[in-house]
Amino acid sequence: MLQLSTPAALLDLTRLRRNIETMQSRMTVLGVKLRPHVKTSKCLEVVLRQIAAGASGITVSTLKEAEQFFAAGISDILYAVGMAAVKLPQVRALRDQGCDLKIIVDSVEAAQAIVDFGREHRHIFEVWLELDTDGHRAGLKPDGDELIAVGRTLHEGGMVLGGVMTHAGASYELNTPEALAAMAEQERSRCVLAAERLRAATLPCPNVSVGSTPTALSAKHLEGVTEVRAGVYVFHDLVMTNIGVASMDDVALSVLTTVIGHQKEKGWALVDAGWMAMSRDRGTQKQTHDYGYGQVCDLNCVPVDGYIVEGANQEHGIIARVGGIDGDIAKRFPVGTQLRILPNHACATAAQFPEYVALDSAKDVVTWPRFGGW
Amino acid sequence: MLQLSTPAALLDLTRLRRNIETMQSRMTVLGVKLRPHVKTSKCLEVVLRQIAAGASGITVSTLKEAEQFFAAGISDILYAVGMAAVKLPQVRALRDQGCDLKIIVDSVEAAQAIVDFGREHRHIFEVWLELDTDGHRAGLKPDGDELIAVGRTLHEGGMVLGGVMTHAGASYELNTPEALAAMAEQERSRCVLAAERLRAATLPCPNVSVGSTPTALSAKHLEGVTEVRAGVYVFHDLVMTNIGVASMDDVALSVLTTVIGHQKEKGWALVDAGWMAMSRDRGTQKQTHDYGYGQVCDLNCVPVDGYIVEGANQEHGIIARVGGIDGDIAKRFPVGTQLRILPNHACATAAQFPEYVALDSAKDVVTWPRFGGW
Repeated sequence: MLQLSTPAALLDLTRLRRNIETMQSRMTVLGVKLRPHVKTSKCLEVVLRQIAAGASGITVSTLKEAEQFFAAGISDILYAVGMAAVKLPQVRALRDQGCDLKIIVDSVEAAQAIVDFGREHRHIFEVWLELDTDGHRAGLKPDGDELIAVGRTLHEGGMVLGGVMTHAGASYELNTPEALAAMAEQERSRCVLAAERLRAATLPCPNVSVGSTPTALSAKHLEGVTEVRAGVYVFHDLVMTNIGVASMDDVALSVLTTVIGHQKEKGWALVDAGWMAMSRDRGTQKQTHDYGYGQVCDLNCVPVDGYIVEGANQEHGIIARVGGIDGDIAKRFPVGTQLRILPNHACATAAQFPEYVALDSAKDVVTWPRFGGW
Repeated sequence: MLQLSTPAALLDLTRLRRNIETMQSRMTVLGVKLRPHVKTSKCLEVVLRQIAAGASGITVSTLKEAEQFFAAGISDILYAVGMAAVKLPQVRALRDQGCDLKIIVDSVEAAQAIVDFGREHRHIFEVWLELDTDGHRAGLKPDGDELIAVGRTLHEGGMVLGGVMTHAGASYELNTPEALAAMAEQERSRCVLAAERLRAATLPCPNVSVGSTPTALSAKHLEGVTEVRAGVYVFHDLVMTNIGVASMDDVALSVLTTVIGHQKEKGWALVDAGWMAMSRDRGTQKQTHDYGYGQVCDLNCVPVDGYIVEGANQEHGIIARVGGIDGDIAKRFPVGTQLRILPNHACATAAQFPEYVALDSAKDVVTWPRFGGW
């Protein structure tokens, strides 16, 4: 490990494998397909492991992800961000190459833009309807009139109406099993309601897609649902431990860093993992346990209780003890010490790195590239 | 502009040129060299313009920056993050190729590690001493005993003692010309004091290097200083407008985004610039004016007063009016509208993109690559 330059994004392959298996077997038991959201890893090596474990297709957050994973042989792709007409030529190019790329909308205007483009270019897009089941972001109301209007616009406009999808992002604000199970049921029942209303209006709705990591890991049943989407479970992070759907032993992503100095009277150890490495994500700030910019662990990824990355500049992290100055910080973490930091939000921290350093239990080290951009 | 896929990082070349000229001419008047910090842009096209305008060498925050810019012909480089011994082979390799790369330390332990490595590998490193002139991060006390001890360790250990350097990052917490000028004077006087103490102890100290964008733009004089380092001035951002050293018309970096939907009753317009594009940096949160994740502007980069990116998910931004729901948001910003968002922190937002789209006044569009990683 000491040969690695820092900062580096480490992946614990034992934990990664366990996270993938836990989610996949849960979905199998619940009788639904799993369509993992690859925005977390943006890494072919990770996604191939999810597919090998039983995943069925992928979810992407950018068309670049669609392009990269399609080039690697994955065809069944849902682009889960509301479609902007300016990107339709890119979607069409992928579909013309044989990519089964599905897009989403949540308004008549956006649906009409797809219909117009499709007619002009003689292309039939497959479009799913985005639903708002928790008030946290985008989507049509499951019980509203616009749902049927958008479905009709697409269907009568000659597009394939592929189904409905929703993401209960509000689950990130919860932290009890009961509240999470209730949110999962809300996500499920409202999504199924929308599907039933479309069908009652003689519109097709073959796919009913729900998901977020917290609700996927908390749902009691998924009647009427055909597939679940989840992303961050593959790595997990401190936000997930605060929500209560993971423990620190599940967090597969950590940032390797080196101690470069101290401010002894302040109890600070300075490390070379700043916000450029950890990201500026402060997802645990409003949760029960605020980890600053991350939880300090030793080289075996065992948490050093009470020590967090309290502050961050671009290439400097400040490690300190929570709740009181450690006057012996320079002895505890001498210059040159290497540490591993668990991130608040794995999607954000991973995005800061061009590659992962994957470690298996035999301590073999391999590099897995990841990509960024759009 | 409508041909561009979104999100995209736009650079206004007129503003960029003006920012470069303003800082360079100020430094010329103050009689010091300017060593720009290239961590903001990580882009050769930008840095070549800074050098053409008169900059003397560069400052880097990672060894990758040193490698990339040295490969492009820039040799005089200061690596302004405390040296970790694990990186010395990389520094030595660059110096062996002819790169005049200087490193920094702020402790006897780190200095001794450099001396030990240098002796073992028969290499003489040039080392500068990092000073703490404002209590915000790393560095030796200018009036402390350790300053002399570290200098002596290096000098007697056979290394080149190149000078002292400091960065008054605490200037980011100020917002009046008087307080900023006082901080600039504190940064200058304490750095000069350290240089004088080293010289009085018969240790060499040819370079006296200070800098941050706010202090560089606020210093009344720089007696005893040989060079200034500053980074974000090249793009400027909303943090700098809140500090008072830039206006919105100076901000050269913006994120082009497309409206993808609405939640009309909440007054939200959803755009395809989320935190993956803007970064999670909330630098204006504690300042006088909190811009959320950024200030909304029209396609000519004219601010739309009162509209900010209020919230952000990975690939979704939520635009809303500050202080009251805009019931007509869907008419104001219809689906498909393209907008430009000024960032809180240019270094963080730029880091989310693999390239800039540079726009000159003739509306010509060229792509300038930037790099990330370590």
